[in-house]
Amino acid sequence: MENLESLKENVSIFLPENGLEEKLKLAKKENRKLRIKLGFDPTAPDLHLGHAVVLKKLKQFQDLGHQIVILVGSFTAQIGDPTGKNKSRKPLNVDDVKTNAETYINQLSKIIDVEKAEIVYNSDWLDCLPFTEVIQLLSKVTVAQLMHRNDFNKRFTENTPIAMHELVYPILQAFDSVQIKADIEMGGTDQLFNCTMGRQLQEVNGDAAQIVICMPLLRGTDGKEKMSKSLNNIIGLTDEPTEMFGKTMSIPDDLLIEYLTLATDFSISEKEELTRQLKEGENPMNIKKIIAKNIITQYHSVEFADDAEQFFNNQFQKRNDENRIFETIKIETLDLVSSSLLEVCHLLKSDLSKSAVRRLIESGAVQINGEKFVDPLHCFKLISGTKIKIGKRDFFQLV
Amino acid sequence: MENLESLKENVSIFLPENGLEEKLKLAKKENRKLRIKLGFDPTAPDLHLGHAVVLKKLKQFQDLGHQIVILVGSFTAQIGDPTGKNKSRKPLNVDDVKTNAETYINQLSKIIDVEKAEIVYNSDWLDCLPFTEVIQLLSKVTVAQLMHRNDFNKRFTENTPIAMHELVYPILQAFDSVQIKADIEMGGTDQLFNCTMGRQLQEVNGDAAQIVICMPLLRGTDGKEKMSKSLNNIIGLTDEPTEMFGKTMSIPDDLLIEYLTLATDFSISEKEELTRQLKEGENPMNIKKIIAKNIITQYHSVEFADDAEQFFNNQFQKRNDENRIFETIKIETLDLVSSSLLEVCHLLKSDLSKSAVRRLIESGAVQINGEKFVDPLHCFKLISGTKIKIGKRDFFQLV
Repeated sequence: MENLESLKENVSIFLPENGLEEKLKLAKKENRKLRIKLGFDPTAPDLHLGHAVVLKKLKQFQDLGHQIVILVGSFTAQIGDPTGKNKSRKPLNVDDVKTNAETYINQLSKIIDVEKAEIVYNSDWLDCLPFTEVIQLLSKVTVAQLMHRNDFNKRFTENTPIAMHELVYPILQAFDSVQIKADIEMGGTDQLFNCTMGRQLQEVNGDAAQIVICMPLLRGTDGKEKMSKSLNNIIGLTDEPTEMFGKTMSIPDDLLIEYLTLATDFSISEKEELTRQLKEGENPMNIKKIIAKNIITQYHSVEFADDAEQFFNNQFQKRNDENRIFETIKIETLDLVSSSLLEVCHLLKSDLSKSAVRRLIESGAVQINGEKFVDPLHCFKLISGTKIKIGKRDFFQLV
Repeated sequence: MENLESLKENVSIFLPENGLEEKLKLAKKENRKLRIKLGFDPTAPDLHLGHAVVLKKLKQFQDLGHQIVILVGSFTAQIGDPTGKNKSRKPLNVDDVKTNAETYINQLSKIIDVEKAEIVYNSDWLDCLPFTEVIQLLSKVTVAQLMHRNDFNKRFTENTPIAMHELVYPILQAFDSVQIKADIEMGGTDQLFNCTMGRQLQEVNGDAAQIVICMPLLRGTDGKEKMSKSLNNIIGLTDEPTEMFGKTMSIPDDLLIEYLTLATDFSISEKEELTRQLKEGENPMNIKKIIAKNIITQYHSVEFADDAEQFFNNQFQKRNDENRIFETIKIETLDLVSSSLLEVCHLLKSDLSKSAVRRLIESGAVQINGEKFVDPLHCFKLISGTKIKIGKRDFFQLV
């Protein structure tokens, strides 16, 4: 049980509470691997740091020699949302599912050893399940049980329609656990209900009930909702290093501890040290940089992490430029001979000679609304709002 | 529309209210028969007067040239009640279903022209319905809609478990209507919800919604619950004439008008006349006899009706005999020479000559405990409680 402490780290819910100890003992006694199920919806194959919280826990079990079973929810993916209300659940054909599953498995390999994992598709047993057996399956669950699921309960109480097939999906997820003889099912805390249903069906079926391990839901870069592709607040496992760095730097300061805890692979003592620094007044931006580099090191390499930081620092300088206050110039005050770029820039920078201004333009040092113009005779339209940058430090805006 | 009045007789619910007129017009315009569905559960094939209320309405449509479609619910019958709680719903095998359906159809022929009816089995399309299509089907109905069904609502509110498959059955019944392109679905008022679901699914499917015609539920001979085999309160269509007569005579008086209205085939004016007689003080037993004879005439013949009445009258007389007060005779008061039947009877009827008593015995007019004895020398055991009947009117009991 020397690994128990580490296996328990970050876990939000064990069901039952002492279930993990029992299962580990059982595995030892029966001299077998535990079968640990993780379901995956192949409609959105882009893995992000939210998924990683669960996957890293799986990896711990894998490292201890247990059997990871990745369940691809191909059956439901092929149906999509028949009501058409949930647009993110379009029906996928067999090829789509295969492609998505491959993408997913490829991304999984960033965290777990995919070669050692068992990959199964639930369409293998659900596609051909006779209707009579569907009815048998449904008879094992009551309406009231399903209505205990928070979202169902809320929608039912608020008279928001729940289509009947939605009530069937948790039962299918549970049936998957029966099929693959799961000892443990892992998921985010939002999967607690569905995973619990698996326990029930296994028991009805005369099997030992799986235990449920729920990991906390990492919030997205917006700091509000859980990380989710549809909310456009994700840091993807395959994001480029610079993107990962930038996104991590963009998270609100009050998410720092959450990211430090769940998204980095620092040891517990390292996490404590950084938390202490933060509490003692360290600039949160510095801690964010440390977190960002740790994340990039996990999914790319330490070299990429360094480069990304460098890139961020440069970009940050540039962004500062963009945010600087422009000197506003009233168009009517400009005593124009012609509207060529050269003429306008020379009026704005009257301390420079006309030929110096021409050289600046030709060297690409002049931008209009962020776009480079290198022809001094470029015909210039005098429109209010136009931004002109001359050289590195002079910013003007026509009004 | 000359038949409309007659088609509307006894109907409890039309949905929509003016739906029948519309459908009849449509049939005329399109020069086609209306397809009129009646579902049948092949677990309980014994038809009774309750079923007949609906079947006679169907017959009216059939007589007008419309197409009756008898839907045998073979799919659900083969499943039974998977929870095992409803013991009347044991799973049936294919042969059972076939036998029950044949029994049923045979009984149907007492009311409708079975040759002209279309008989379909829903297992033909449900047995092989792929799970993906089941999900599609379920997606078309919401949980809230189903929970509006009275019994579901009551059970949900009272926390009485509703197994998930039970919610699926009304959807299947509705799907049957889509499959057979029903213009009208008929049933008892307790089928209103399920039939309405058919309208919805047909509309979702882009078809015209069936109209629903619900007939009142005839109460059983107990005068309490609706007629139902499980409540043992039925008058079966295949009951023997004497059984039909006796059962009808046993109904409580306050059911007379209900039976007159729903179970007889009297004309409206005849029904009114009998109702008037009843209100003006006619003995309810006489009206019951008229109703009983009418029922037997429908399902057997007028001759059987007469015989049954005669039989009833005899039985009734006999029952009266059995209930009459016996003259009790103390055994010790009998001054017996021998214990022959002749000797005993002569002592009891001392006003008759011994030879007159002997003739009575030999003619079969003497019964001991309801059994005829014709041998005057029959050795008679003097046991307390023995009942002796001599002739038509003399009853004695030894004590």
